[in-house]
Amino acid sequence: MEKGRLLYEGKAKQLFATEDENILFVSYKDSATAFNGEKKEEIDGKGILNNKITTILFDQLKKHGIESHFVERISENEQLVRKVEIIPLEVVVRNVAAGSIAKRLGIEEGIPLKHSIVEFYYKDDELGDPLLTNAHLGLLALATPEEIETIETKALEVNKVLQPLFKEIGVTLIDFKLEFGKTPDGKILLADEISPDTCRLWDDETNKKLDKDVFRRNLGSLTEVYETILSRLGGLSK
Amino acid sequence: MEKGRLLYEGKAKQLFATEDENILFVSYKDSATAFNGEKKEEIDGKGILNNKITTILFDQLKKHGIESHFVERISENEQLVRKVEIIPLEVVVRNVAAGSIAKRLGIEEGIPLKHSIVEFYYKDDELGDPLLTNAHLGLLALATPEEIETIETKALEVNKVLQPLFKEIGVTLIDFKLEFGKTPDGKILLADEISPDTCRLWDDETNKKLDKDVFRRNLGSLTEVYETILSRLGGLSK
Repeated sequence: MEKGRLLYEGKAKQLFATEDENILFVSYKDSATAFNGEKKEEIDGKGILNNKITTILFDQLKKHGIESHFVERISENEQLVRKVEIIPLEVVVRNVAAGSIAKRLGIEEGIPLKHSIVEFYYKDDELGDPLLTNAHLGLLALATPEEIETIETKALEVNKVLQPLFKEIGVTLIDFKLEFGKTPDGKILLADEISPDTCRLWDDETNKKLDKDVFRRNLGSLTEVYETILSRLGGLSK
Repeated sequence: MEKGRLLYEGKAKQLFATEDENILFVSYKDSATAFNGEKKEEIDGKGILNNKITTILFDQLKKHGIESHFVERISENEQLVRKVEIIPLEVVVRNVAAGSIAKRLGIEEGIPLKHSIVEFYYKDDELGDPLLTNAHLGLLALATPEEIETIETKALEVNKVLQPLFKEIGVTLIDFKLEFGKTPDGKILLADEISPDTCRLWDDETNKKLDKDVFRRNLGSLTEVYETILSRLGGLSK
């Protein structure tokens, strides 16, 4: 599959066309950003690590019957995905209080929530990705109420697969962010990536953060903790 | 009814006990506050105006079959209300984009919403009254899901009465904040006040703001516009 013209460049990935109009070429960048782009750094090897971790996680989800846009990894930092129209929502699943929910609602970080919850944020850098209620989702009409329900259900299904998968490797899945897209025939499909960039992952023994909070809060080497996650997940040969 | 000991002092009102344990004595203060108490001023006559306007609006709601905690006005700045346990939620009904929703979602102020919406905020000064989604409401358990539904329905009913009532006096009800309480027998009852402190009211001819935004944004005399609202509502003899 040939890499065609650049269609979109985000903070962490580039999307290219391919000769197949239904397939995109994704190149994972080494850029690390936080706080809506205010903090930024190039970190050698980050793209490769996230490409590999996302590959393992999307493959695992597929084995558990959860489809995604992921087709195959084709190089160290590149993968092919199905082309979907991304719905501009950040879909956050939370199992344990951390980050914004802890601050906003005054819950101590590390306190397990009574039950897992799903939050929707409007993916809009200029607005700072605001939290949305159901009423806002209805007003913005970024997706139909039925599509929102499908997304919420799918997000919780992903959680049901990923939580035990991480637990097996001694890691608690605190929270994570998903994005969904629509296929040309209107099907809602899991998209984007699942990596330590988009999850909070805490080591069960040491309680150490094995995710992008290491970068956000200057807690050490990002690649070291991402490599820990990749190797515990079984790694990938090349 | 004798004014007993001070039970609670808020930013705009004092609550006193009475000899009847089911009835409270409310005294409307002249304090104006905004931005979570950061901006503060004493404005002579504000308490009287809000006491009178709230009286008229709760009476009108009652005529339309919507009960509230309001019993009767007993002096220029005082009224009696039924004692309820206030549910710590600010219930906001919006008809037209203004204030926080305009900023947060990038909607221009003055644009009518496709349909009226209800938002819930956690009444907590320390946290800055954060917006809550249904998932947060479930976690915080400040009220049962059934109670939340009752509150949402009642808030929209209040809107259905107040919107035409203000329209008749040449004013658009942009948005407003309600609070609800629980009676000893567990009934959800409309409480607090309804006044230009808690509503956004725009003059239909001049588009001028006739509400607390005059104070928030330094647009002129607060008492002048509150008096406009009171006199258009028909005033009160003493």
